[in-house]
Amino acid sequence: MDEIEIHWLREEAGSADILIEGLPGIGHVGKLVAEHLIQELRAEKVADIYSIFFPPQVIIGGDGVARLARNEIFLHEGEKKIAFLVGDYQSASAEGHYLLADAYLDAAEHLGVKRIFTLGGYGVGHLVSGPRVLSAVNREELRPAVEAAGGEFNRDEPPGGIIGASGLLLGLSLLRGMDAVCLMGETSGYLVDPRAASGLLTVLSELIGIEVDGSQLQTRAAEMEQFIAKLAESERAGDDDALRYIG
Amino acid sequence: MDEIEIHWLREEAGSADILIEGLPGIGHVGKLVAEHLIQELRAEKVADIYSIFFPPQVIIGGDGVARLARNEIFLHEGEKKIAFLVGDYQSASAEGHYLLADAYLDAAEHLGVKRIFTLGGYGVGHLVSGPRVLSAVNREELRPAVEAAGGEFNRDEPPGGIIGASGLLLGLSLLRGMDAVCLMGETSGYLVDPRAASGLLTVLSELIGIEVDGSQLQTRAAEMEQFIAKLAESERAGDDDALRYIG
Amino acid sequence: MDEIEIHWLREEAGSADILIEGLPGIGHVGKLVAEHLIQELRAEKVADIYSIFFPPQVIIGGDGVARLARNEIFLHEGEKKIAFLVGDYQSASAEGHYLLADAYLDAAEHLGVKRIFTLGGYGVGHLVSGPRVLSAVNREELRPAVEAAGGEFNRDEPPGGIIGASGLLLGLSLLRGMDAVCLMGETSGYLVDPRAASGLLTVLSELIGIEVDGSQLQTRAAEMEQFIAKLAESERAGDDDALRYIG
Amino acid sequence: MDEIEIHWLREEAGSADILIEGLPGIGHVGKLVAEHLIQELRAEKVADIYSIFFPPQVIIGGDGVARLARNEIFLHEGEKKIAFLVGDYQSASAEGHYLLADAYLDAAEHLGVKRIFTLGGYGVGHLVSGPRVLSAVNREELRPAVEAAGGEFNRDEPPGGIIGASGLLLGLSLLRGMDAVCLMGETSGYLVDPRAASGLLTVLSELIGIEVDGSQLQTRAAEMEQFIAKLAESERAGDDDALRYIG
Repeated sequence: MDEIEIHWLREEAGSADILIEGLPGIGHVGKLVAEHLIQELRAEKVADIYSIFFPPQVIIGGDGVARLARNEIFLHEGEKKIAFLVGDYQSASAEGHYLLADAYLDAAEHLGVKRIFTLGGYGVGHLVSGPRVLSAVNREELRPAVEAAGGEFNRDEPPGGIIGASGLLLGLSLLRGMDAVCLMGETSGYLVDPRAASGLLTVLSELIGIEVDGSQLQTRAAEMEQFIAKLAESERAGDDDALRYIG
Repeated sequence: MDEIEIHWLREEAGSADILIEGLPGIGHVGKLVAEHLIQELRAEKVADIYSIFFPPQVIIGGDGVARLARNEIFLHEGEKKIAFLVGDYQSASAEGHYLLADAYLDAAEHLGVKRIFTLGGYGVGHLVSGPRVLSAVNREELRPAVEAAGGEFNRDEPPGGIIGASGLLLGLSLLRGMDAVCLMGETSGYLVDPRAASGLLTVLSELIGIEVDGSQLQTRAAEMEQFIAKLAESERAGDDDALRYIG
Repeated sequence: MDEIEIHWLREEAGSADILIEGLPGIGHVGKLVAEHLIQELRAEKVADIYSIFFPPQVIIGGDGVARLARNEIFLHEGEKKIAFLVGDYQSASAEGHYLLADAYLDAAEHLGVKRIFTLGGYGVGHLVSGPRVLSAVNREELRPAVEAAGGEFNRDEPPGGIIGASGLLLGLSLLRGMDAVCLMGETSGYLVDPRAASGLLTVLSELIGIEVDGSQLQTRAAEMEQFIAKLAESERAGDDDALRYIG
Repeated sequence: MDEIEIHWLREEAGSADILIEGLPGIGHVGKLVAEHLIQELRAEKVADIYSIFFPPQVIIGGDGVARLARNEIFLHEGEKKIAFLVGDYQSASAEGHYLLADAYLDAAEHLGVKRIFTLGGYGVGHLVSGPRVLSAVNREELRPAVEAAGGEFNRDEPPGGIIGASGLLLGLSLLRGMDAVCLMGETSGYLVDPRAASGLLTVLSELIGIEVDGSQLQTRAAEMEQFIAKLAESERAGDDDALRYIG
């Protein structure tokens, strides 16, 4: 086994202009958006990625069938040609983060990708009403379009930089002459956050120039708000048990 | 020294259709079953496995003779040809888990193995009467035979996937076109558990089609139950000292 | 991506007799001095250094543009030819420290460097008035010049050796026949310390034989002393809130 | 820089029948004995060992001269030809322990070594009067000679095997057909323990067949006993301050 293995599933890998990364992270915001788009655009899986840098385990499906921890590349070859990078885990080691991000870019170049969008959450540690979409770019020229689409840039946010694939893809892609934008949905960071994902989807769709039905995310976001409202009510009523349902 | 070294002890490695893995893990359930089978079937040791991924230490036998931490392959070449993978430790690092599992599969292919059974414990955190044998497979087609032999499949068990060799051998073997089944004896996870091992042995024997005398495991399980009963009694009597004997 | 990549930015790398290392460390003393010199001498950036041993993240500038964590080499080719090694991080792993230091020395040799000055802080755990400049050399013959310039040598300071790039560059450069001196500004270790940096700059300038305007560091040091005086006053007055401004 | 570098200091490495390892460990027992022998036998240094697996730092001598963390090989070519392995550190990583031990054995083979003695401490967690010398061998045939020299073998000591170089050299040397004996001086494990070292020296001298003046170690041991007696007295007198002098 190589340190990182990309298994292409079709004879011809296909092609894409854009890569959207939505690996697991804060509030699973990026993951929610990318998986929503894959579903709405009926993108097709074209590659499995295995690596010794993922946690050493298998994941068991509802049918009792185990499979290796993996990341996946999906492809939507419609009017817009878009590749998606999603999956189970990010790297379990610091060095692995770099080597995986580099391999993701090899795959992106293989597909002909020119621009990368990395999606994530920006955890602020408290519940947020009307979550913003914080942004970063790897070339200043990309900034006006992101702002026009609703992405915000704030001098001190996020304060510690961007960690993991969403960050490294921005930095490493520049060395290859690729454009990259990171969009981060503001979120508490405590819960899987479809509301932050819904806001992020709006900005991303505008930026890419696609129309996507976001109602499913909005429904999940509404359910979430009801859940949080109930939670707050229970807390006021001194009912600590309600908190148990979060984890 | 290479990262992983397999030292074959005979001129000809021999051959096996099945590999049974029982490395140390939760409740040492898999280890108990595999070592019991090696003893009952009088399997012969055919290989030592050394690795820089094992803890950096030697183990001292009762005779004061030290030997490297190692894993071992045993071979039973009777009516059924069965290889066993047992040993002192699993990997001390995440990456090492992958590289060792890959090396185990190289050895399995070297022996001609077509199907792999990985054995482990499923820790539930409380004492269990009538422990189940939870199961996972690497191809759905394998499931009916496992269920017929008494293995159970439950949607949410184990919830976090299967970690270590028992999991990775399932996932990595699929990439090589090998069948693999994981059997996990339900156990508290606090004690070495011959009762869980005894239950697992029944399912495994049925699946492989061998008859093995499980009385030794049953005797140990009975002793264990007496020990636990005494423990419970002491606890009721407020005798905390009894608990000291567990560790 | 290689484990360590040095990207030279000019056709010809240029040349230098001296390398001054000021990577992040205790009290950021070395970093303050090296960056001050780069500014005063208007040194030009000649190389970027990227590595999988740096933390896996990007840093976001005030303009929202992200860039990889990196180290940098600057070059001043005046009467004295001086290279500077500065940057965001030291290695995140123990092995990486060695491999990065070795790569820094490759770059230094590429520039023709004969002598290395590594700059750091010596944390003593309490506020220091009149901070000393502790020193170490990699050949005894270098000691008199350092002492003449105001660097001190004390048998038991620092007691645990010198960790990271400032230390390893001393040790590894000797194996290549290069001279190296480490200067450590005495500091509490709790705060970024321009006062310790100012003292270190005096010794270093004397040693190298350059005249540098240190007034900017002195101004920052004076501001710092006022800040600390206020802090002490607040503490006497029982105003714990003042302490919040340190972090 | 290679992961491990052995720098031989003479044209011809020389030859030795025996290697004595005394790297830092519990109570520094092995280190004390090996360094005492080097001094008494006026062994000559023949090699420096550097490695990225050692802690990333330099050590500063009393003269202010820094040097890389390193291990060293000394050679005594008298009636008995004996090599010594001593130094600053053991490996900082688990994998490094294996790779370093393997490199030590390469060096030993280079010198023609046939038998290895690894020296260490056996920490029991309480003060010991009349410390034993626990032993382990890598072939049962070696045991009678060790017992005749005063080394003890106890079924359950040390219970967790032998960790680090002292252990791995026993295990790895067997794969190369070399004999190896580990001698462990019983010690509290809290203090550098010349008394345990003195006892270990007696057994080792007998085993190798050399006469060494152990009076220096005995003097240090006597001083230590006085120190401990004072400590106990102070404790009885409720003088907690005395304890501060241990660290």
